[in-house]
Parts: sequence; C-alpha cells; structure tokens
Amino acid sequence: MEDTRLHDVARTGAAVVGTGFIGTVHIGALRRLGVPVIGVLGSSPERGAERAAALGVAQAYRSLDELLADPLVQVVHVTSPNVAHFDQVTQILSAGKHVICEKPLAMTSAQSAQMVTLAHNSGKIAAVCYNTRFYPLNQQARGMVAAGELGQIRLISGQFHQDWLAKDTDWNWRLEADEGGPLRSVSDIGTHWIDLTSFISGQRASAVFAELATFMPVRQKPTGPVETFSAAKGGTEPRRINTDDAAMILLRYPDGARGVMSTSQISRGHRGTLWWDMSGTDASAAWHADRPEQLWIGHRDAPNQIMLRDPSMMNPMGIAASTLPGGHSEGFADTFHAFFRQVYADVERGARGAASSYASFDDGHYEMLFCDAVLKSAQDGRWVDIPDA
Amino acid sequence: MEDTRLHDVARTGAAVVGTGFIGTVHIGALRRLGVPVIGVLGSSPERGAERAAALGVAQAYRSLDELLADPLVQVVHVTSPNVAHFDQVTQILSAGKHVICEKPLAMTSAQSAQMVTLAHNSGKIAAVCYNTRFYPLNQQARGMVAAGELGQIRLISGQFHQDWLAKDTDWNWRLEADEGGPLRSVSDIGTHWIDLTSFISGQRASAVFAELATFMPVRQKPTGPVETFSAAKGGTEPRRINTDDAAMILLRYPDGARGVMSTSQISRGHRGTLWWDMSGTDASAAWHADRPEQLWIGHRDAPNQIMLRDPSMMNPMGIAASTLPGGHSEGFADTFHAFFRQVYADVERGARGAASSYASFDDGHYEMLFCDAVLKSAQDGRWVDIPDA
Amino acid sequence: MEDTRLHDVARTGAAVVGTGFIGTVHIGALRRLGVPVIGVLGSSPERGAERAAALGVAQAYRSLDELLADPLVQVVHVTSPNVAHFDQVTQILSAGKHVICEKPLAMTSAQSAQMVTLAHNSGKIAAVCYNTRFYPLNQQARGMVAAGELGQIRLISGQFHQDWLAKDTDWNWRLEADEGGPLRSVSDIGTHWIDLTSFISGQRASAVFAELATFMPVRQKPTGPVETFSAAKGGTEPRRINTDDAAMILLRYPDGARGVMSTSQISRGHRGTLWWDMSGTDASAAWHADRPEQLWIGHRDAPNQIMLRDPSMMNPMGIAASTLPGGHSEGFADTFHAFFRQVYADVERGARGAASSYASFDDGHYEMLFCDAVLKSAQDGRWVDIPDA
Amino acid sequence: MEDTRLHDVARTGAAVVGTGFIGTVHIGALRRLGVPVIGVLGSSPERGAERAAALGVAQAYRSLDELLADPLVQVVHVTSPNVAHFDQVTQILSAGKHVICEKPLAMTSAQSAQMVTLAHNSGKIAAVCYNTRFYPLNQQARGMVAAGELGQIRLISGQFHQDWLAKDTDWNWRLEADEGGPLRSVSDIGTHWIDLTSFISGQRASAVFAELATFMPVRQKPTGPVETFSAAKGGTEPRRINTDDAAMILLRYPDGARGVMSTSQISRGHRGTLWWDMSGTDASAAWHADRPEQLWIGHRDAPNQIMLRDPSMMNPMGIAASTLPGGHSEGFADTFHAFFRQVYADVERGARGAASSYASFDDGHYEMLFCDAVLKSAQDGRWVDIPDA
Repeated sequence: MEDTRLHDVARTGAAVVGTGFIGTVHIGALRRLGVPVIGVLGSSPERGAERAAALGVAQAYRSLDELLADPLVQVVHVTSPNVAHFDQVTQILSAGKHVICEKPLAMTSAQSAQMVTLAHNSGKIAAVCYNTRFYPLNQQARGMVAAGELGQIRLISGQFHQDWLAKDTDWNWRLEADEGGPLRSVSDIGTHWIDLTSFISGQRASAVFAELATFMPVRQKPTGPVETFSAAKGGTEPRRINTDDAAMILLRYPDGARGVMSTSQISRGHRGTLWWDMSGTDASAAWHADRPEQLWIGHRDAPNQIMLRDPSMMNPMGIAASTLPGGHSEGFADTFHAFFRQVYADVERGARGAASSYASFDDGHYEMLFCDAVLKSAQDGRWVDIPDA
Repeated sequence: MEDTRLHDVARTGAAVVGTGFIGTVHIGALRRLGVPVIGVLGSSPERGAERAAALGVAQAYRSLDELLADPLVQVVHVTSPNVAHFDQVTQILSAGKHVICEKPLAMTSAQSAQMVTLAHNSGKIAAVCYNTRFYPLNQQARGMVAAGELGQIRLISGQFHQDWLAKDTDWNWRLEADEGGPLRSVSDIGTHWIDLTSFISGQRASAVFAELATFMPVRQKPTGPVETFSAAKGGTEPRRINTDDAAMILLRYPDGARGVMSTSQISRGHRGTLWWDMSGTDASAAWHADRPEQLWIGHRDAPNQIMLRDPSMMNPMGIAASTLPGGHSEGFADTFHAFFRQVYADVERGARGAASSYASFDDGHYEMLFCDAVLKSAQDGRWVDIPDA
Repeated sequence: MEDTRLHDVARTGAAVVGTGFIGTVHIGALRRLGVPVIGVLGSSPERGAERAAALGVAQAYRSLDELLADPLVQVVHVTSPNVAHFDQVTQILSAGKHVICEKPLAMTSAQSAQMVTLAHNSGKIAAVCYNTRFYPLNQQARGMVAAGELGQIRLISGQFHQDWLAKDTDWNWRLEADEGGPLRSVSDIGTHWIDLTSFISGQRASAVFAELATFMPVRQKPTGPVETFSAAKGGTEPRRINTDDAAMILLRYPDGARGVMSTSQISRGHRGTLWWDMSGTDASAAWHADRPEQLWIGHRDAPNQIMLRDPSMMNPMGIAASTLPGGHSEGFADTFHAFFRQVYADVERGARGAASSYASFDDGHYEMLFCDAVLKSAQDGRWVDIPDA
Repeated sequence: MEDTRLHDVARTGAAVVGTGFIGTVHIGALRRLGVPVIGVLGSSPERGAERAAALGVAQAYRSLDELLADPLVQVVHVTSPNVAHFDQVTQILSAGKHVICEKPLAMTSAQSAQMVTLAHNSGKIAAVCYNTRFYPLNQQARGMVAAGELGQIRLISGQFHQDWLAKDTDWNWRLEADEGGPLRSVSDIGTHWIDLTSFISGQRASAVFAELATFMPVRQKPTGPVETFSAAKGGTEPRRINTDDAAMILLRYPDGARGVMSTSQISRGHRGTLWWDMSGTDASAAWHADRPEQLWIGHRDAPNQIMLRDPSMMNPMGIAASTLPGGHSEGFADTFHAFFRQVYADVERGARGAASSYASFDDGHYEMLFCDAVLKSAQDGRWVDIPDA
C-alpha cells in the first residue's frame, strides 16, 4: 500500500532542527518515506555533529542560517525546545522553505498570531506536529463525524495522563516556565487532546473553565543535562515549580456541546493514557491510544461496534492515513509516516490539498489561545472565552 | 463462604417499601440472605397486592402505618421515589425500626440534616443504598488506601455515563424536578460516584465547580405509567425539562487533592460506564463497573497489576464483601447481598460494627450538600464550598 | 423484570443434598427465587445439622430416605461428590421427585445411560447443572446460531484454565480417581466447555482426539478435611495422582466442523479463564467468562460488534435468561437464578417447556460418553468416535 | 533511543528481492534504519522497474545475477514467493552476500537442510524473517523465561486466526500447493506461532499431532494478478484447494511440557488474532498481538501483572528491541526496524552476536521439519516425532 505514494518525495530534501527523541522520530519517518534527510541542526555545533554521526546523517549545520542556505533543503522540521520555535519558524518561512513545527507552535499567542500571518503570506506549507490525528482510526472518526454518522456531537470527554513526572526527582526542561511556558501538562499533552478532539468533532471550544494543580511545588533539578523520557544522573538542586502537574478542564462549544478533560503527568502506571469519547445525537465513538487499532462506536438500539483499523472497511480519510493492511498493527512512528506522507505530497503539489488533514498554523494558534484562556480561567476561577483563531 | 454469616439473620424480618425494579432487587437479596421478607408496600394498595402476588411475598400492606405496626418487621427498606424518602424514613425511625434507604436520601439537605439527627437519636441502624461500594474490589481499594498503599491521593477522576435517556422519547419520573429534585444525572448517578470515591479515598470534596447541560429541553412524556429502564407505551405529551442530561464537575479536597468527573444519561452505547481512577503519591488504582472483578493498580517503577477478586489474596475488607471464590464472577445483585449481610449483622448486634463499611445517613447527607453546591456552582459559574456534613 | 416469573414457585419445595460451596450457591439461588428450601442433607448427620444451622435452613435430614419421605419436597438438588450421584439420583427419581444434579451426572457412561432411561420413564424434570449456559449472552448466542445468524459453524475453539491446583500442595477430592473419576480437568471443567459449545452450536462432537497431562504425579494430601477452593490446614501425606492436570482436545463434528480446546488447573493467574470462539460461514462469535456481559460478534466486511447484555436488544433466549436491565452486571450466582427459574417453571408446568434450554440428562450422558472417548483417545493416541447419546 | 545504534549501518548496502507488501515493509524499515536500499528485483524486469520508481529506489535489477554482481550490495532480503527461496538464497550465499529470507525458508525440509549447511559454511549472516519475535515484549518474555522467572514451562497454548481467506472468492497464491507448499495456514501463520513460542520458551516441540481442515474445497481463482491482502478484480475460475484453511495442533516437548494451538484463515472478524499463553511452575505469561504493548504475567498468590513496553523497566532483551519510550506505541513495522537493527549490527561485526535473538536458518529449518511432521500426523492420525533440526 505504501507503494503508490512515494514516487515523487525523493525530489524534496528535508532538514531537522533538534536532534533529541522527537527529532530522531522525524528522521526515521522521513527516511522510511524515502525523503532525503540532508542535515540536522543540534543545540550546539558539537552536539549536532555528534548526533549526525550517530544517526548517519551526512551534514550537521552549525547554524540555522547555514541550514537555510542549503539549496537541497526544501522542508525544515522544527523539533527544538518550545522557546525557539517562533524565531526559527520565522526565519524558515522568510527563507522560503516549508516548515513542520513541533507543538506548541510558540510561547505566546501573540507569537503564534504572527506566525499564522507569516505562513499565510509565505504560500509555503506550514504544519504543526499534532501527530495523534494520524492514527488512522482518528482520521476515520473525523470522516465519520463529517459525514454525520454520529449526528450532532453533544459531549466530549477524555484524558491524557502520564507518569513520567510523578516523582519530585523527575526533571525535564518543560517543568520551568521560562523554557516551556507557564503551562506544562496542558501545553505539552492537553493540547494534543484539544487538537485531536477539535479535529475529529470539527468544533473548537469557545469557552473554558480550568483548574490547575501543582502537587510538587519543589523539585530536584539535575545539575547536568537530561534527555526527555530519560533519567538524570549526577547531582541535583531544589527548584520551585509553578507549572501544572495536572489540569482539569471544562469546555463549551458554540453549538451547545460540552467537554470535560484532564491532563496529568503524575499518575503512576499511566505511561500515556490518552483517550476521547464523543456522544452524538445518533451514535457515540471513542478511541484509546493504548489500543490505537480499535475505534469503538456506541449505539443505543444495536450492539456497539469495534472497528479494527483495516483499509478494506474504512472511509477515505482512514484509508489515506493507513500504511499497513488490517491485522498488522500501526503505532506512534507510523503516525509520523502518514503525517509526513501527506505533507510532502502537498509540498510536491505546492499547496495544501483539499483532503489534507494535518494541523495548520491556524490550528496551532488556536491551541495558544486555548492555553491563554486556560491560564486565565484557572487564575480567575471563572469561565473564559476563547477568541476566534 | 456464605455459610458462616447467615445463622442469625432469620430472626430479623424485613419489609420493603416500593416494588419496582430496585425494590425487587432488595427482595431477591434479602431472600438469598435468608432474611424473611414479611411484606411489601406498593405505590397503591392495588399495586402492592399485585406485586406481592407476583413476587411470592405473603403480605401487601395498605399503608406505611400498617407496615410499621407489624411486629415481625424489624428493618424497613425504602425504595420509593425520592420525594417520599423523608416522610417515610422519619416515620420508620420514629416507629423504632431500622431503615435502609435508597439514594438520594432526601429531596433537600435540610431534610437530610434532620434525618441524620433523627437516625442518631434513634439508636437504630440507618443505611443508605450506595451499593456500588460493595463490589468487593471497591472495598479492597478502600482497605488499600486506608493502609497507605497508594500513598496520599492527589487526583481522582472518573465517569458515570449511561444512555437510557438518550432520546427525547425516553421518559422517567426522574426527568421532572418536582419528583426527582432539581438535579437528575448528578443526583441519580453522580452521587454514586461521589459516594464511591469518598468512601475509597477517605476524603470528601470541600469545594466544587460544576457545569450542567440539558441537551433536550423538551421531551415527550407518556400519558401512561412507565417502569424504570423500560420503554413506555401509548401516547405522549411534550414537557419542558430543566434537569441535567449531563454534568461535568471539578472537585477540591481539603488536603489539596483534586477531582474531575462527569455524568451523562445521553451517551449512546454506554449502558453503565462507571469508573474511577485515583493517582496517589506511591501508586494508582482504578476500577471499572464493566469489569467489576478486576482492580487495576498502577506503578511507576514496576509492572502494573490486575488484582482479580479472590478472597485468597484480598485484604479483610475485600474478603468481607466477597461471597464467591475467585473465578466465579460477582455482579450487581451480589453487591446488595454483601451490603445487606453487613447491615443485618449490625442489626443483630444492635449497633454499627467497627468494620462496617456501608453508607450512613451522614454519608447520605453529605451527598445532599454536595448536590446543593453543584447546583449553586452551575448557576453562579464559580467554585462553591461544601459545608461539613 | 424478575417479578412476573415467580408467582407460582413458592408452591414447590426444594431440598439440597450436599452443603459445600456449590450447595450453598444452590440454596442462595433458590431463596432469591422464592423457592422454600425445606431441608438439606449433609455428608454426615452432624455436618448436615451444622450447615443447616449456619445457613438458616430449618431442617437437616439424617438420610436420603428421610429427605425423600418429606412431602414438602418436590425437587431435590444433588450437589454431593460425583461418586454419589448415580445412587442418589436413582433414589430421587424412583421416589417421584424432580431432580437437578450437579455435573458430571455420574461416574460412568453406563450409569448415566441408566439415568437417562430412568429420567425418561419417570416423567419428572431431570436437569444437569451446566449453569454456564445461563449467562444470558450464551443463551443469546444459542439463539443467534439457531436463527442462522452466524451461518454454518466451521471452527470452535476455547479454553477453561484455572490455577487452583497449580501447586503440589493443593488438594481436593477430585484429584483422586476413585472419588472424582479417572478424568479430572476434563470431567470437572472441560465438560462445562463441551456442554456450553454443544448447546450454542447445536452440534455434538462425534469424534475426539485427546492428550492428557499430569504434571505433578505426586501431591501432598492433607490428613484433615478440605473445602473446595479453600486451603488445607494440618499435616499431609504424599499421594500418587493419575488424573489430568491439563488436557488438550481436538474435536470433529458430524457436518465437518472442527474444534480445539484445552483445560488446565495449573495455569497460574487464571482463576477461571473460560472462553469459546466460533467461526461461522457468515459471522463469528465469542464469549469470555471474565467479561460475561459482552458477546463479541465478528465480521469480515463490517466492524465487529460487542453486544452488551441488555434485554432491550437481545433475542428471546437472551431475554429469558436475564434478570437485570442492561448496565447492571450479572454474574455466576445469577446464572443459577436464571437456570432454576426455568426449571421450576417447568416443574410447575409438569413438563419441560418447548423453550427450555437447561441441560437434560441426555446432555449429561453425552458428557460421560465424551469423557469415555477422551480417555480412550489419550490412551491409544488416535481419534475415537463418540457414540450417539 | 534509536540514536546510538545506527552509526555504522550506512556503510552496508541492501537489496530486496520481491516488491510486494512485505518487500515494501522491508524497504521502509531499512530506510528508517539508515541502510541504503541499493536496488530491488521484481517478479519481472517490468514489474521491478515499476515498483522501483514507485518506491523511489534508484535501481531495478533485471536478474538476481545482476543484483549479486552489484558491489554496493552486502545484504539481500528475499521476499519472493516461497517457491523461489531455495534457489535465490543458495545463489545469494554462494555469491558471498548476507541474507535475510522471509519465512518459510523453503518448500521442503530437504531444501532447508541444505540451506542450513550452506549458511553455516558461508560464514555469512543468514536470518529468517520471524519478525514477531521482535515485538519488544516477546523479547522481554524470552528474557524472563531464560532467567527462570516463570519456572519450568508446562503448558503453551495459543492461536493465530485470520479472516482474509474466509470467502471462497478470496484468492492468494498461497492457496495452491504448488506455489505455497502443501500446507497453508500452518506454513504461513502457524510457523510464526511455533517460532515465537519456541523462541520464548527455549524449547522445540519434539512430537506433534495435527488435524487439518479445508472448509472450502473449491475456490474461485481470479484470472488476473492479485496482491496479498488485496481484493481481486476481473473474472474467476473454480479451483480445487487442498491446503488447510485451519489447523489444530497438539505439541509435546522433550521435558514433558505440552502445547496446543490452532490456525485459521477463515475466522471472520479476526484480522490477526495471534496470541500465546505459557503456564510455568512459578508464573504464567501471555501476549496478544492486538495489544502488543502489554505483557500479562500471571500469579497464583499475588495480583497478576501487566507490564507495559517501557525500556525503563524491561530486561536487556526487551530494551534492545525497543525503539520508543514507554507510552509511545510500537507496531508491526517497528518489529522489522528492531529486527534489522540487530541483523545489520551483526553484519557490521561480521558474525552473529552472542545476544542476537533473530531466527537463524537452523530455526527456519526446524519450522520445515515441524511442517513435515504436521502433514504426516494429519495424514496418519497419530503422533509424529519431529527430528532434531
């Protein structure tokens, strides 16, 4: 099935900014797709060189300028820390390159608003890495909602709970507001859920009520470097933490639908418990990331259904995001494969396709506005409107 | 295992007020336990006589007075509509009988406050039917939390979603505020969740933020009678509905823990999706009513665990609530069996036992205060404190 | 729902032979149903008296003769060890009483053949306790197969694995061939699976190939008494064991269908892993005892389905076996309730009803023939035919 | 995590024989790993050229000779139909190239015996594509068994059921014995299960009893070409089919352990229901391909465990096969990534590593001997020994 979709992508070269866990995932997905990874840009020239060698990438750029000057590079993937996104993306688009930026798009909605304008004016493909959309059954669900198969969506619920920051000795740059922004669990994982459910339901929440919780106001920061999802070694120093270990959020949608969700990074035993459930007037649907190959469809007057990911029975959106036949499980890495397959087809075509379903900068900007509203609601203890993106 | 616990109960006679679905469940559980069901009181003398005949109960009382005058009756089960609870329970306790009252305890917290006092002064056993506590693994979970096995509870989440009122042609007396009270999904099923998680965590929420939703403001009311969980026959008339089809509730606990839960009676495919998940400082636990024989225990540094209901490995609370050996599934009816077994042992003993774990009137009163706060919060759009019960 | 089915049963009195775990389950189910339990017969007069007191049963017979002479008793439940079934059932039927006998029906197929004839000639209701049929979704499945909804059944697979005899210090009377018969796991639990799948598929295997395994040829037998599913106390002595810890069985059905199943009593972590899966020409179905409220229905060209136990959407057989509305879980004890409800309705009626679906003595005799063939096949290492029952 | 393992692989060039579904999976995995895919060999020069263009592969060889003459190619992947494996592998090894051959290794055990000798004498890496081993939790399970954590394995059970050949209009070259060999479901999927459980348990069955079933003795063969897992178009002609739609197999292991498994390609709703369950003297373990990120560990005296795939808590074998952190699901394509990562590290090293865990030609030959025994057992209706590989 992969076959018919790859033939033109090799004409397009990619570079990846950031060489950590997720940057490596990008590189693997690009290669699998047959997109040449021309080079990488590390957090320092030394780190970049080391990672390029480790990854078998020919080139380690010493600066973004050098990267952007490389004529072999048409698409730049931004997987650097959040704080760098705005400047890097601005330069990339200004240099006339397409861009795929990790979420969150920016540190502030003022930044992301500018990025939307810049992307629009550039005429380039500008995507945000909400890869979870690309589990094929999430695309299937979007297609079902769009076709009216659930009726009008009334209630959306779900969670994204993890445990990788459950101990006060767990450390990551996202913990400190000046690097990751004032929100943590909401920004890092909550926005995945918001993007996913907005995408599937076709609706964006227009108001929000939020409660944030920081259960460990002091954590032990390692004095040396830490890789995401890896344990630190060496000494530590206590640091006051203001970002949210967990958040509980209520949502109102323009047509009267409601939502409720929570995020947590301190729930032991939950590595990545991400799920959503939508109750429509005609049927329900639900998806859990720990069984990503199943879509639950709920009925009142008939047995419920479990749709397995299987191109032989999915709708066009589900099929487009599938790589393997039914019975051959797809996972996290496959979502990047399907996501990039769609983006690079658009790059080849020179414009976003009518059926393209990846998150745009507009979607990324909405997430920033959502985060603003969450923060304000939690501070004020009241419902806060989310302006139109 | 049942054997050693029944020998004295036959000395105690019971009567059941209300002969609908749940009243029938009470009668079945009493009989299984060996408690003589002396008589029933129906919604009318005719209905009572008809049901007594159908159920093989010897006696159909024509009034509560007649029931209370029967010297064979020591315990009265109240399964009438919510609106009748206060008066009936007051009379029962005043008559010197023990009482087991279906939830919610009353229509208002003013009533339930009086009932707490009356129960206390009566010296009689006064229990509220939060039967869900008596799934043995919920008792097990309570025992684990009490023993500190999860550490301090930080985050409690969960749902109780149903679909039996998903259509505007679905009807039940609970829909109308004057019979069921101003809250519906919160009062009918949300309080089950609140009771269950308060019981297990050993903590009562001290403040609440709530959002209520009525998706179908007009419903078709049948002109004839309707049995709970049964479809109506005959004509209908439109009725304006103000009670909540769904609710989304945030919780704050005195020690800093937080909670988030939702209720729904309109989520197609969810017959009774009731679950809770608690994140503690040392471990997590979760339970789902659709696999009631499993308790999930979550760990950060070790594999998660699935404890099967099995008296050979549970703690004393779990064992006490179990009736069958492991591998022989228990269900809804068994919770009443275990619940009543504990209550009737206390009746025999003449006082609530130190290890008794059924909901008291104080617990039932807390649920009323909780509902008051939910209603006020939803009206005002702000956090509302729950006074001490 | 229970209501309309009970009104006549109180006219019928029951007695229970055997007062162990399963006898107690019988008594609880009878009481819940409103059937008076007139008396019990223990393994000794003393044991019987002790258990009658513990269970609140008025009468402990001192002999089967005394029991059979009691005019209040119309139905006798036989829950004694397997070795006693033949004699007791023979006496019961000869005394003109109806009988419900625990499985296996007898020690040999010669006995069970006689019992079939005796039952037939007696004109009395004679049932065998294959209670697993009475999980409502198993009845539903039977109804679906009978209605042709799966097409022709081609392949039946499944297991019944337990762990209660996983240690060589685990002891039960079933371990020794002279009390339990030459087969153990096959006879005790394998026949449950065979009965269940024969019932649902409407087909009996006509040939069998079997492999038996005794992993612990010597076990430690307690010198004192042991209750089923309970740990022994006191001293032990080594005993040579010849019965099967596990069995693997292949099946051929008359119309060309095939089956494969296994039993085990030594599989740690499996308390009661009982499941079946049937592949039909048009659809598949599967049921697992650890989620008894769900029936899986498999499709090739459409999403699979999960039917929840819910009388509002089941077929007549499923509805007839259900006691509670959907969303209120039923379990092991409820199967006895549904089973006895059907048997006692037939007792009242005086004959097996056309829609009755409990196992007859003929079914019980087939299980004995099946066991004979299993034993012979395992001994000879070849396919062995099962004669018509 | 991928980072540290890739740095040398780019020195090694690969070629892939066969360009269908599984060949494409190989190519994607090689690219993701950073291994240059130098060229492909199609079923015809035209087909090869077409697929090379579609896949963005630079070179389409016109013959195996041409491929083997390419000095850039050090490793050849054989994904052609089974009937071609022997000749192609022989030529590849004779040409001094390393080889990774899809299963089954050959058409006969005589062939595979020669291939074992040839591989041994060649000193080259020779692997068979039993990729299922490389789900990280299967590697974890192997490590656990090897460390004695389950004790001695007594009973192995499981299934591999599919539905892609459930209709008599489903067609694939494997259906006809002359292309796929005399066994079908056993050879195509049963050997996956046998390899997986042999690998994990560290034991090979020494005797087998088998029953084969062909439920559709006549099928409709399309007159045009068919891609595996794809529907045919155009006309059909009836063909008599002798290969097995399903198989039921009993196993005896040298130390007294037993096994039971079944295969099916006609079980509707089962896209790829592959699972195994092992009962050891100290603990059990089980894994299901439809939740590949979970390993169930069963205990008698403690709660069962669910180990999530998470390098932070797995043993060295599990860690070595993992690519992503816990909470980021891996799937089918990731198993090829992990498998090839290990093979290419050995290629670089010049010899199979002590910790390497991929299937050798010896393992592949055992599968052929196993198939021989299955066929003979089914024909003769008796236990058949499997000679030492």
